[in-house]
Amino acid sequence: MADAQQHKAPQSDIDIAQAARMRPIVELARDRLGLAETDLHPYGHHKAKLTFDCVRGLEDRPDGKLILVTAMTPTPAGEGKTTTTVGLGDALNHIGKKAMICLREPSLGPCFGMKGGAAGGGYAQVVPMEDINLHFTGDFHAIGIAHNLLAAMIDNHIYWGNELKLDQRRIAFRRVVDMNDRALRQITSSLGGVANGFPREDGFDITVASEVMAIFCLARSLDDLKERLGNIIVGYTREKTPVYARQLEAHGAMAALLKDALAPNLVQTLEGNPAFVHGGPFANIAHGCNSVLATRTALKLADYVVTEAGFGADLGAEKFFDIKCRKAGLKPACAVVVCTIRALKMHGGVAKEDLGQENLEALKQGSENLARHVENVRQFGVPAIVAINRFSADTEAERDLVRQIGAELGVEVIESDHWASGGAGAAELAEAVVATVEKDEAAFHPLYPDEMPLWDKVRTIAQSLYGAQGIIADKVIRARFAELQSGGFGHYPVCIAKTQYSFSTDPNLKGAPSNHVVPIRELRLASGAEFLVVVCGDIMTMPGLPRVPAANRISVDSDGRIVGLF
Amino acid sequence: MADAQQHKAPQSDIDIAQAARMRPIVELARDRLGLAETDLHPYGHHKAKLTFDCVRGLEDRPDGKLILVTAMTPTPAGEGKTTTTVGLGDALNHIGKKAMICLREPSLGPCFGMKGGAAGGGYAQVVPMEDINLHFTGDFHAIGIAHNLLAAMIDNHIYWGNELKLDQRRIAFRRVVDMNDRALRQITSSLGGVANGFPREDGFDITVASEVMAIFCLARSLDDLKERLGNIIVGYTREKTPVYARQLEAHGAMAALLKDALAPNLVQTLEGNPAFVHGGPFANIAHGCNSVLATRTALKLADYVVTEAGFGADLGAEKFFDIKCRKAGLKPACAVVVCTIRALKMHGGVAKEDLGQENLEALKQGSENLARHVENVRQFGVPAIVAINRFSADTEAERDLVRQIGAELGVEVIESDHWASGGAGAAELAEAVVATVEKDEAAFHPLYPDEMPLWDKVRTIAQSLYGAQGIIADKVIRARFAELQSGGFGHYPVCIAKTQYSFSTDPNLKGAPSNHVVPIRELRLASGAEFLVVVCGDIMTMPGLPRVPAANRISVDSDGRIVGLF
Repeated sequence: MADAQQHKAPQSDIDIAQAARMRPIVELARDRLGLAETDLHPYGHHKAKLTFDCVRGLEDRPDGKLILVTAMTPTPAGEGKTTTTVGLGDALNHIGKKAMICLREPSLGPCFGMKGGAAGGGYAQVVPMEDINLHFTGDFHAIGIAHNLLAAMIDNHIYWGNELKLDQRRIAFRRVVDMNDRALRQITSSLGGVANGFPREDGFDITVASEVMAIFCLARSLDDLKERLGNIIVGYTREKTPVYARQLEAHGAMAALLKDALAPNLVQTLEGNPAFVHGGPFANIAHGCNSVLATRTALKLADYVVTEAGFGADLGAEKFFDIKCRKAGLKPACAVVVCTIRALKMHGGVAKEDLGQENLEALKQGSENLARHVENVRQFGVPAIVAINRFSADTEAERDLVRQIGAELGVEVIESDHWASGGAGAAELAEAVVATVEKDEAAFHPLYPDEMPLWDKVRTIAQSLYGAQGIIADKVIRARFAELQSGGFGHYPVCIAKTQYSFSTDPNLKGAPSNHVVPIRELRLASGAEFLVVVCGDIMTMPGLPRVPAANRISVDSDGRIVGLF
Repeated sequence: MADAQQHKAPQSDIDIAQAARMRPIVELARDRLGLAETDLHPYGHHKAKLTFDCVRGLEDRPDGKLILVTAMTPTPAGEGKTTTTVGLGDALNHIGKKAMICLREPSLGPCFGMKGGAAGGGYAQVVPMEDINLHFTGDFHAIGIAHNLLAAMIDNHIYWGNELKLDQRRIAFRRVVDMNDRALRQITSSLGGVANGFPREDGFDITVASEVMAIFCLARSLDDLKERLGNIIVGYTREKTPVYARQLEAHGAMAALLKDALAPNLVQTLEGNPAFVHGGPFANIAHGCNSVLATRTALKLADYVVTEAGFGADLGAEKFFDIKCRKAGLKPACAVVVCTIRALKMHGGVAKEDLGQENLEALKQGSENLARHVENVRQFGVPAIVAINRFSADTEAERDLVRQIGAELGVEVIESDHWASGGAGAAELAEAVVATVEKDEAAFHPLYPDEMPLWDKVRTIAQSLYGAQGIIADKVIRARFAELQSGGFGHYPVCIAKTQYSFSTDPNLKGAPSNHVVPIRELRLASGAEFLVVVCGDIMTMPGLPRVPAANRISVDSDGRIVGLF
């Protein structure tokens, strides 16, 4: 968001964040959440993890209301979902409600690549932003090393005699690093002779793409975590029998490595409101939401909990509803679909460089994209509100037109100016959310029942949400569907990995395409996370660095102040 | 040590550690070190980092006395150097001195392999031991990711056009992971086509073997750290011109990643005495001591600082003196050479399974090893004391004989029973150390001057400390020595990487071999750490897991208690 909106404020995100007067987290937890110092494990003075005893002690409390922030189909113009989540949370507090925010943790890799920070922007940020963007409380490091322990134990098992008869060609568990490192996408490992094992093809994903990350974010307790880790399929025998992490006796040590990480991280917004920032799985090959433990704990501590899902609503909200809410028993009360006038125009065919000019026709056309996302959210029984994340270049006529389109769709459209004005700038949005929640009209249900066959689940999503005519797959894939259906995995939800840039599988197809066909290229069974990843298109699980990485400008001065991170 | 001594106590190290009543670290820092809460960044309630402001604010204070704990040549019987360091620190406090301990941080990898924990043993441990052994305050993760950022930036530079003309065959910087993973020792990376870069040979070391780790442990400040990171040679052009990390503009972001990690970690011993546990470079291809910042800070906070060096005195103490003390301006006042009667007998030819039986002849013979280590320490102008780490199987006659040998060598020999009795068990050792320090007879000097040619430095160490006749190397190596000597690196100290199991390069040559020859196999320039690694023998920088890894028994229970880590 920083790039897109920086014309509005002379200060960069990091300047604003570093100028913030943060409250000691122990004080904030006491005054705002009623937590004692012993309920927290501090990490410095402005970050803390809740203890497990604290989390468990809250279980009998009633739940607050859960509000999802999702978005239209993303464009290079940037929509500002995280920023809106923070702004809405601040705004709810601003209008006198007791609200908390739940966000994903940013990944280190992208931070040194293109993206810079990912803790909100402008006057809607969580702080300390440098810490959150860099190592934070070490959760991703813990997830990475737990993952790589299992990977090492797989090759070690083969090295020492391969009692479980793993087929080296059928290892299903790669390695990870929290870095954008294209050189590691595909490697040959165990070279160099007898002492180094049996050479095989392997590769690295970025840590957020790890199944351990997905498991971490879905686990309800340490025991549940350990159980799921044991259920990871690490590979297959020559007879295609799955071999589980449990059989390698890896899951206990992996859980030990994740013990501290599993507790939710408490930080604050620039306006001093409490926020959990915890977990961050990919939104394509995983479900793309912060941890179940953070969300459930927040619901016990606040009357309103604002959280976000990855990418647009077709991917992010769908997985939030069909995977996270289904599995964790969550009942969202309202969804906010974020859009920008810029992005609507891009979906109407305007190039990025022409976004500064008014274009009502393109805006009208591009709003088809927004309309479908709103309609999709409603299919889950969740009332939707549209938030327009304001940019200074938005013209009066454009703003009027969006409101008119909203009226035609029967959806409230509220402008929000949290980026420049913090919570006060999103007060109207907060009032609308409260009014909607108080109407109590939400009747959340997943899109499809557990017992629907896997193939039909994918088709239902494609037809109902993507506007597709249907789905296709070659014989091998269809056979694999049948195999999984009869192999005891038929009740899993599906997790569709496709481009985030279109309702279709073609990233260039903007707006709201219809009658397209969704081709299924690959199935990946995440038996620890308990979903079936359905890969539709070319999905990148290890990004690369750009020609001039953000790392080139990031540094630290003599006093320990981070510079160049925006 | 746990395995070797467990017959003495019914409890395992982790049982003892988990039964400890720890003081809140903020209280301990206040009462024992006079530090305010604002001088600390807490990590939970029992670990903290000092702030940089705190560290800098201490600079004008006088230094306490520095005591090195080193050892005879290690054997599978275990000598207990860390345990003795902790025990001596506790004992100094026990007899009324103001003492601190400085230890290395354990590496995660070995913890899941053979070794189990590495935070002392019995009643001489630093706690919380599970935290210290697992992620601790995240320092090694930070070092690993800073290292891998540079690695990714190297391949990224080549990918985007290779302006610096790096020769892919001459990349001098591998990748790291904090795991025992033999499958990654040698790999081919960047496979899979144009989008993934140019295929080349690569490999992973364990994080503790990273040059970033060595730099981290030698840096005096953030600026010094950044400067040194920029000096890392990442590879060479076809014309063999070195290419530095600075040229890739990687050092700033690397330093940003290391900013928090660089501050010393404060914990406590089982007896509630303050200890820094910070940094942990390999003792073969690096210098094997905790961070300079921790040691220097401890000297400002305590009258006595007890620290340890890796392996036996031939490797560990030599590097502590010739690299760390030389570079950091430290003046050790006394060295304690740890031995056990079991290890002395092994050096006298007794097999591990026969160590339970008295064997005075073997003991006499094996003491030659100890004698040479004592003599070596004295060559640096540092008075030595021998500590016998007691085992219950040691017989009266054996104990008398060691004392008699000590008398012949003119060195005090003190039995110490800290493993079973904590600080009280090492009180006599502490008194001896104080008496020695108060005599003020230390006149520390490195073994060789900066200006001695590199080749002569290696020969001096081999002849003076290892008892070797000389050193040999083939023409290529000799040419490389000449090249480095004339290329501006002649003033570097040398860091000899050889087996820790013998004074020679043959691990089976026990005792105190003489007239052997030390063959030099390879030179590695650590231009950021500012030493020349001289590889003499087969040095493993990536361990493997054993047939039954410790990971198999490590787990966590429903309440978050770590089990199986000993």
